Amino acid sequence: MADTDGKPTEGVEGSEELEEVEEETSEGTDSEEEVNHEKSNTTTPEALASQLMMSPSVLAAMQERLGSLVGSPSGYIQSLPKAVKRRLKALKKQQFECTKIEADFYKEVHKLECKYATLYAPLFEKRKAVVTASQEPTDEECEWPSEDEKDEELADEVKNKVKVEEKKLESSEDNEDVKGIPQFWLTIFKNVDMLSEMIQEHDEPILKHLQDVKAIFSEKDPMGFTLEFHFEPNEYFTNSVLTKQYTMRSEPDETDPFSFEGPEIVKCNGCKIDWKKGKNVTVKTVKKKQKHKGSGTTRTITKTVQNDSFFNFFSPPAIPEDEETEMDEDTEALLAADFEIGHFIRERIVPRAVLYFTGEALENDDEYDEEGEEEEGGEEGDYNEDDDPDYNPQKDQSKPQECKQQ
Amino acid sequence: MADTDGKPTEGVEGSEELEEVEEETSEGTDSEEEVNHEKSNTTTPEALASQLMMSPSVLAAMQERLGSLVGSPSGYIQSLPKAVKRRLKALKKQQFECTKIEADFYKEVHKLECKYATLYAPLFEKRKAVVTASQEPTDEECEWPSEDEKDEELADEVKNKVKVEEKKLESSEDNEDVKGIPQFWLTIFKNVDMLSEMIQEHDEPILKHLQDVKAIFSEKDPMGFTLEFHFEPNEYFTNSVLTKQYTMRSEPDETDPFSFEGPEIVKCNGCKIDWKKGKNVTVKTVKKKQKHKGSGTTRTITKTVQNDSFFNFFSPPAIPEDEETEMDEDTEALLAADFEIGHFIRERIVPRAVLYFTGEALENDDEYDEEGEEEEGGEEGDYNEDDDPDYNPQKDQSKPQECKQQ
Repeated sequence: MADTDGKPTEGVEGSEELEEVEEETSEGTDSEEEVNHEKSNTTTPEALASQLMMSPSVLAAMQERLGSLVGSPSGYIQSLPKAVKRRLKALKKQQFECTKIEADFYKEVHKLECKYATLYAPLFEKRKAVVTASQEPTDEECEWPSEDEKDEELADEVKNKVKVEEKKLESSEDNEDVKGIPQFWLTIFKNVDMLSEMIQEHDEPILKHLQDVKAIFSEKDPMGFTLEFHFEPNEYFTNSVLTKQYTMRSEPDETDPFSFEGPEIVKCNGCKIDWKKGKNVTVKTVKKKQKHKGSGTTRTITKTVQNDSFFNFFSPPAIPEDEETEMDEDTEALLAADFEIGHFIRERIVPRAVLYFTGEALENDDEYDEEGEEEEGGEEGDYNEDDDPDYNPQKDQSKPQECKQQ
Repeated sequence: MADTDGKPTEGVEGSEELEEVEEETSEGTDSEEEVNHEKSNTTTPEALASQLMMSPSVLAAMQERLGSLVGSPSGYIQSLPKAVKRRLKALKKQQFECTKIEADFYKEVHKLECKYATLYAPLFEKRKAVVTASQEPTDEECEWPSEDEKDEELADEVKNKVKVEEKKLESSEDNEDVKGIPQFWLTIFKNVDMLSEMIQEHDEPILKHLQDVKAIFSEKDPMGFTLEFHFEPNEYFTNSVLTKQYTMRSEPDETDPFSFEGPEIVKCNGCKIDWKKGKNVTVKTVKKKQKHKGSGTTRTITKTVQNDSFFNFFSPPAIPEDEETEMDEDTEALLAADFEIGHFIRERIVPRAVLYFTGEALENDDEYDEEGEEEEGGEEGDYNEDDDPDYNPQKDQSKPQECKQQ
């Protein structure tokens, strides 16, 4: 068709003038030699195949072979010549040597973690000092940009409008007499799903007295870490520190060495809580009236049973000393959840507590979750295990569970 | 009701005789003092609340506050007294110091990885020797239990039945003249989804010449690693080694320091492949017949365009030197996928190649996937990043993509 917009066209080869009528594609032709890979690959095998298909015995043999291959990923391996299978065994024996070296690597990483724990320690002490009001930070120590500053100004305006009512609702609002950062650890625990599920209403007044959480690393004998929960003097128990000790192992499992993916938590020990009289929230009494079916008389019996509580975290189920003894499924699930919680506190909460208090650490996790879900249909919530040489979800992959024992 | 089975009962208190008519529960009663936490917690606030609800101005204020809190995780933080907000800034400044220490930790982990790479190296050399038939392992070196031994015996029986046909189908079967482990790396690449998606039919005859894949670690200047693909002399290109270099960074991002989760890959460089004449599978020629719309004459033009190929892995898109320049989404996704593939080859394939050849590494991954899905609704396929101090999916979280450039 002729140009209608009146613009000059350069010769008759203007692209609008041309209609593409055919396309031919050939690969690997960066020179004068033309090669068509597709064609050379398909002709001969097809001919061979149809030739073979004419033999009923070949068909039967193929079906038998296919049957044995279905669901068997090693079908290909089984079909290999014996000499090759023998060499694969040599490679596996070498691989086992690699696994032992890998176990040593993870031990050294743990050693590094122990070393770095001492470098973080002074900063965590400073944190405790600010949280518990034993030290007021200087202006210089508080120089940190706040992204929320504009939001805060806006919020302040709103607040001014409703000032009188505010005061009634929250008497602590802008009360400069507040000491430290109240309910610092309780707020963190309530912000993290895995932990908030453990916390009952009766635990909260106790956890308000929690002043610090520390992770103490042990390089060996045994390799592991201890979580310390430091409490201020309180009306509930006399302990100043509650502890939970985790023992780890960085050795390939002899029965399945190639599943080794780094150290795993193998054991944990709680501690005895010295509850003050009538303050033990981990037990409750159940009164039952019983009626004698024959005589019709009734009596009341009192039973003490376990009560849901965060503090059950300090009395985990025992692991049988004898490794051969099978644990029941419930105990196994409870321990797997416990190990995950212990690891999470050590690896995420303790090192970045303030970010769990403000929710920033949760936002980062959520961002990852949401984007992950779009593409993969769901990720473990609240926690990215990616940076974590110690964490082995293949060993303790249960979803965080409530620390309930019923 | 009376006993009917004739067994003696101990007194009138046998449990069958009793009917439980009532249950009362109270908590924290391990002593004579009884405390009911629930009741003491609920009475006063409820009364206060209903009192407050009678004031319309209080209601309005609450609604305004609630409105500003919805969708804002920092709503609680905003409601804190100024003195507390100031202390939180101090904690964040301390947290930034922690992040810098963490960056150093990851640098030391990388240093450890460099050290361990030299410990693995002799084993990987032995592997190459067996794979390429430059050394036949001794009987002692092949002593490794095979779980499939029973299966193999069974399979052997089946094979014997169809021996003649077998020979026709697979001429290499039990051929003791086979050298080394044929198609070792090609088989591995085809077993791993992330890599098999990159491999086109025309790549396979080339990848049959791949003899070794190495990861060479660089401690610094720049921190990173280079993947080396060693080829035997072949008809496709003259290079004996193709390389892909990855540069990493272990520094918190200044604009978002708290998102730091360890080193990330920030750059990669491919290499020039010296294709022999007509063998370059990464390009194809497209012939187009063009018809002049006016005159009706046709002509044929030839265009060289990029072709899908594994070997495009060696010519990744360039990253703008200027960090301010935004990449387009496609390039960003392509690079994210490339970084993930490079990391996967270094971290999983190279260290445990034989297990990807036999499929055992895939089985372990699958087991984890399936169990994970039951509880969490899906996990990243084929790869557990948990043991991996270098891998940061928050930075390069795209799903593995085909290495296609169209």
